[in-house]
Amino acid sequence: MSEVIATYSVLGKPGSFEKKAEGIALGLTVGTWTDLPQLDQRQLAKYKGRVISVEEKGYAGNKVNALIKIAYPALNFSADLPAILTTVFGKLSLDGEIKLIDLELSKELRKLFPGPRFGIQGIREKLDVYDRPLVMSIFKGVIGRDMDFLLEQLKAQAEGGIDLVKDDEILFENPLTPFTSRIVEGRKILSKVYEETGHQTLYAVNLTGRTSELREKAKRARELGADALLFNVFTYGLDVLQELREESEISLPLMAHPAYSGAFTSSDVYGLSHGLLLGKLLRVAGADFSLFPSPYGSVALEKGAALEIKQALTEENEFKTTFPVPSAGIHPGLVPVLFNDFGTDSIINAGGGVHGHPKGASGGGKAFRQAIETVLAGKSLSEGADAHGELRSALELWGSLEVKS
Amino acid sequence: MSEVIATYSVLGKPGSFEKKAEGIALGLTVGTWTDLPQLDQRQLAKYKGRVISVEEKGYAGNKVNALIKIAYPALNFSADLPAILTTVFGKLSLDGEIKLIDLELSKELRKLFPGPRFGIQGIREKLDVYDRPLVMSIFKGVIGRDMDFLLEQLKAQAEGGIDLVKDDEILFENPLTPFTSRIVEGRKILSKVYEETGHQTLYAVNLTGRTSELREKAKRARELGADALLFNVFTYGLDVLQELREESEISLPLMAHPAYSGAFTSSDVYGLSHGLLLGKLLRVAGADFSLFPSPYGSVALEKGAALEIKQALTEENEFKTTFPVPSAGIHPGLVPVLFNDFGTDSIINAGGGVHGHPKGASGGGKAFRQAIETVLAGKSLSEGADAHGELRSALELWGSLEVKS
Ligand SMILES: [Mg+2]
Ligand SMILES: [Mg+2]
Repeated sequence: MSEVIATYSVLGKPGSFEKKAEGIALGLTVGTWTDLPQLDQRQLAKYKGRVISVEEKGYAGNKVNALIKIAYPALNFSADLPAILTTVFGKLSLDGEIKLIDLELSKELRKLFPGPRFGIQGIREKLDVYDRPLVMSIFKGVIGRDMDFLLEQLKAQAEGGIDLVKDDEILFENPLTPFTSRIVEGRKILSKVYEETGHQTLYAVNLTGRTSELREKAKRARELGADALLFNVFTYGLDVLQELREESEISLPLMAHPAYSGAFTSSDVYGLSHGLLLGKLLRVAGADFSLFPSPYGSVALEKGAALEIKQALTEENEFKTTFPVPSAGIHPGLVPVLFNDFGTDSIINAGGGVHGHPKGASGGGKAFRQAIETVLAGKSLSEGADAHGELRSALELWGSLEVKS
Repeated sequence: MSEVIATYSVLGKPGSFEKKAEGIALGLTVGTWTDLPQLDQRQLAKYKGRVISVEEKGYAGNKVNALIKIAYPALNFSADLPAILTTVFGKLSLDGEIKLIDLELSKELRKLFPGPRFGIQGIREKLDVYDRPLVMSIFKGVIGRDMDFLLEQLKAQAEGGIDLVKDDEILFENPLTPFTSRIVEGRKILSKVYEETGHQTLYAVNLTGRTSELREKAKRARELGADALLFNVFTYGLDVLQELREESEISLPLMAHPAYSGAFTSSDVYGLSHGLLLGKLLRVAGADFSLFPSPYGSVALEKGAALEIKQALTEENEFKTTFPVPSAGIHPGLVPVLFNDFGTDSIINAGGGVHGHPKGASGGGKAFRQAIETVLAGKSLSEGADAHGELRSALELWGSLEVKS
């Protein structure tokens, strides 16, 4: 039967969870059961929520933590994320200490969602790079600056061998660096660097504005030659992302930014798990890239949570895979650890770690590429530093972290 | 200057907050400051975030809680809620123990938002009821049921003198009770009750489906004679609500359901405050009704938070007011307390407290209306129970709570 199975982490009294689970399974589907006439029970059976399992995990403070799994028949909702989230965590999100940990959509339901259009493989084909993590960097301090300033940064990053440059997520429509100029002039610069060096860089422009205008704006972006779209999905809605993915006239890689997602994921007892929101749901809805806090920076995500996101984005299923992009606090000295934790099919994304290099963004980009080359060759970073000046400067500035074996 | 002032509640070490506040004000606007050349500083001054105040409030556990206020120039973002939320709480939502408590939009910015189309006064005019709280009830157990079942419930509620009936928020497009049938046949029943009794009831039908289809679906709802739209705004996005409000061809009262909002508001240290999300932002975006957990039921909201929501929905400003609808756990015995806490300009909303009445939904509706009449006449509920049979039965079943003076 087509259904969604939701896993919740709940706090409560020991022995209280079976009853709570039954209450959820009924309350969020047919309402009541035991007091219904037999005829009604027969008619309603296929709409009834089902407790799959209830598992007490142990004390958390003076309460007990339990995992509850409940199946909701797909008959009850339309096949869209707003309907699914309203069903499994609508009223329930208001019901005390309960966190939505996971959602398993049955195969029939999964067929109704798109997943990424390009995925890791598609992005690699665009860049013609298959054998290493990609390197991404962001613009820095572009608010209040003009096109010259922005293009200079873009050029330096591309010359440093950066694969992907993304807009700052807080750069919106503005007269100094308008959306269309960023696309058109940005592409010109990147094509010039490509002609000169043979290195290709993709630029993800920030798609912003009113919800109903996004689709046309995205189509225009494509016509103007945009490479990819950055999107602050959580201030809009997952279904808006999905609609951008589904529109074949857009057909651009979609980079989901985690802005605002901390409001849903940060608490241990409320909201949604990182793996579900920044992992599974973004992939189902069609993001080609998912950015999330790295486990290393000052704005750090616990490593287990970061790896759960990666797992959800890349585990094998019928959807294309989504690039994990652990972000914040990344410098070239972290490449061995990043590679160890996130593997070849990930993106190394840096801001300060590129722009703060003594030789600027170009030097920073080179240092990252040198660090990756070094790690892939099975060498230590200090060996790499002997061979590469930019890497050496980066390690002197930021230090390094070798993988603990 | 046009700007948004955000208030954050932060946990940290005593004495650490000035620096943190400066970091936020710069990091979310121009990036850096002191190391910029004078010329750049002059050029960037109008884009620079500004720390308004930093106030340590006292210890919370072994950390100190502080309130930080920061002003963000409106020059930096487009005048839409996704841009504003990304600016003030995008990356910052991921930055540890920080909660967004309030947003003050400057007058120039507020002009660019619609507020409710009808508001409390407009809804009262539709119902021609001016001098008492309205009574609302919901359908119960309608999943898997057919139109006859639903219409019978609707009729009983209307006959009981209920002013507004709302769909269950988990009722989506389905073959048994399709959207269009609910509107058309529901209106027929309600018009019939009106002809027979002179009592008018409005029915809020659940607007669901894919984001880009909502607008046309809402227009069709209006053409078919719908009274109002229920909307699970938090699984879509605030801007989607605002676009429904702004479309003049829709022009129907919008009822914002709090489904999924607990994922943002439940934590004391993360996410958004109830007053901001379910109060101020819903009103700015254009909700005519805001449902939120009542401070009385089992799914209870702390009373202070519920009153903050009410305050944000109804305080005087340039926007029309939004009806506060404290929900869950409401029965006729709570009417004195509800009236005391939320006043005349609120809606008394019940599910079980209407349908669970010994004389069914019609009896439940009457009991609520009798309780309101009693309270408005300055009498105690027990006096009311002497005069009204339905109220008497309700009080016997659920008890009552008089206001503590
Ligand atoms: Mg940024
Ligand atoms: Mg309900």
